[in-house]
Amino acid sequence: MNGITLQQAQQAVAAAQQKARDLNLKMNIAVVDAGANLTAFARMDGAWLGSVDIAIKKAKTARYFDMPTGDLGQASQPGGSLFNIEVSNGGLITFPGGLPIKNAQGDIIGAIGVSGDSVENDHTVAEAGMQALQ
Amino acid sequence: MNGITLQQAQQAVAAAQQKARDLNLKMNIAVVDAGANLTAFARMDGAWLGSVDIAIKKAKTARYFDMPTGDLGQASQPGGSLFNIEVSNGGLITFPGGLPIKNAQGDIIGAIGVSGDSVENDHTVAEAGMQALQ
Amino acid sequence: MNGITLQQAQQAVAAAQQKARDLNLKMNIAVVDAGANLTAFARMDGAWLGSVDIAIKKAKTARYFDMPTGDLGQASQPGGSLFNIEVSNGGLITFPGGLPIKNAQGDIIGAIGVSGDSVENDHTVAEAGMQALQ
Amino acid sequence: MNGITLQQAQQAVAAAQQKARDLNLKMNIAVVDAGANLTAFARMDGAWLGSVDIAIKKAKTARYFDMPTGDLGQASQPGGSLFNIEVSNGGLITFPGGLPIKNAQGDIIGAIGVSGDSVENDHTVAEAGMQALQ
Repeated sequence: MNGITLQQAQQAVAAAQQKARDLNLKMNIAVVDAGANLTAFARMDGAWLGSVDIAIKKAKTARYFDMPTGDLGQASQPGGSLFNIEVSNGGLITFPGGLPIKNAQGDIIGAIGVSGDSVENDHTVAEAGMQALQ
Repeated sequence: MNGITLQQAQQAVAAAQQKARDLNLKMNIAVVDAGANLTAFARMDGAWLGSVDIAIKKAKTARYFDMPTGDLGQASQPGGSLFNIEVSNGGLITFPGGLPIKNAQGDIIGAIGVSGDSVENDHTVAEAGMQALQ
Repeated sequence: MNGITLQQAQQAVAAAQQKARDLNLKMNIAVVDAGANLTAFARMDGAWLGSVDIAIKKAKTARYFDMPTGDLGQASQPGGSLFNIEVSNGGLITFPGGLPIKNAQGDIIGAIGVSGDSVENDHTVAEAGMQALQ
Repeated sequence: MNGITLQQAQQAVAAAQQKARDLNLKMNIAVVDAGANLTAFARMDGAWLGSVDIAIKKAKTARYFDMPTGDLGQASQPGGSLFNIEVSNGGLITFPGGLPIKNAQGDIIGAIGVSGDSVENDHTVAEAGMQALQ
């Protein structure tokens, strides 16, 4: 199976949207399934145009390597073991805002990516989306 | 303004999802705004993986030229006036399933693209999404 | 030398714009130099979004092969000697609307591409731009 | 509406061209609208061929994130919060030379990108283009 269902993905997007509204932020929110395929997406009114692609790439990156995007970014710095890994897979985003999503058994069923503000806020909103499924 | 709001886009996606369920179909549904930027997306459980990209490209194509994608496809056939226009804009989809979305005043505010079954069914589901905003 | 100067390219764009206004059309107009590099461009208010790329590709195609784009399109049809040549060079457009630009000596110094309406109108507007330099 | 009009975009290009001539520089100058679509472009005679794409990408980047490209570049350095963001959106340019363009009310209506010399000079010429509309 593909893991996350559309219903779950839309639930995660809705929770992330709500968190963004609470923080007065305008976000792009993407959820991919276990196969890293786009499953649900929402661009809040007035969110940065350039963040559509980044939100999707964050979600894909988090599932491609089953870790928070920010963790990957620590290894992709100059001198790091994964220097410039970002050019692979049609473009990865390795700063915070992408998180794997697990089911109750701890299996990874998909990932969420958020982009539209500081990476700290992107991460916070992504976390709200992820936690809605736990 | 960018035309369609996220709320409207999600309403169109929900109506298209409902129509697909009524017809027992599994669809990918994409809505873009007036600038042809992805605004809302849903992939129904079990829908073709290859249709994620096609649904998005149908929505973009419908807004790029402000017409149903199938109309463009009639002119892009061998011997037609727009033969092979599909190689432009990073890839267009010119068979049915993409429709412009207008507001009450008749202005185009975005577009919807649906992919996952026959082009007739894709078109029917897209139409249901479009009509939800009229 | 690169052939066409910016001054000439802008003159061609201005003549094409004027022709489009006379015909009540909204066009994207691109001029490339002898090296097929973009030299001048104008998108008239409200012109199709998808025609930005097509106008540029028409101009490049006309210079890549030193002929009107429509001529190339006759050879790229199914069974033709250049079938599907459109997939080369990052995407060619082979229907009318792109024309080489020559100087007084008959040397090709660049090309113009126009997109935004029927291919007949695209061609007419491109011709007006080309003729402004002769 | 798409924000900046063609007339305004051409006015910004003309002002940037004039500034470049005053400084004896050869520049590529691009203006995009509120949707980050190319609206006007000029390549001055003898300007770097490689700067055509960079000027366009600078303008798009400035609109994608509604900030000067150089600001984004400060955050995308090794160790920065947006390291390697440049791989997104088909390629971003994050060094100076791209600036959002605002109307009298302070709304962003487009952006200008300039490339052809040092980033300081690129920025100066972009600024002249931007200021022509204020």
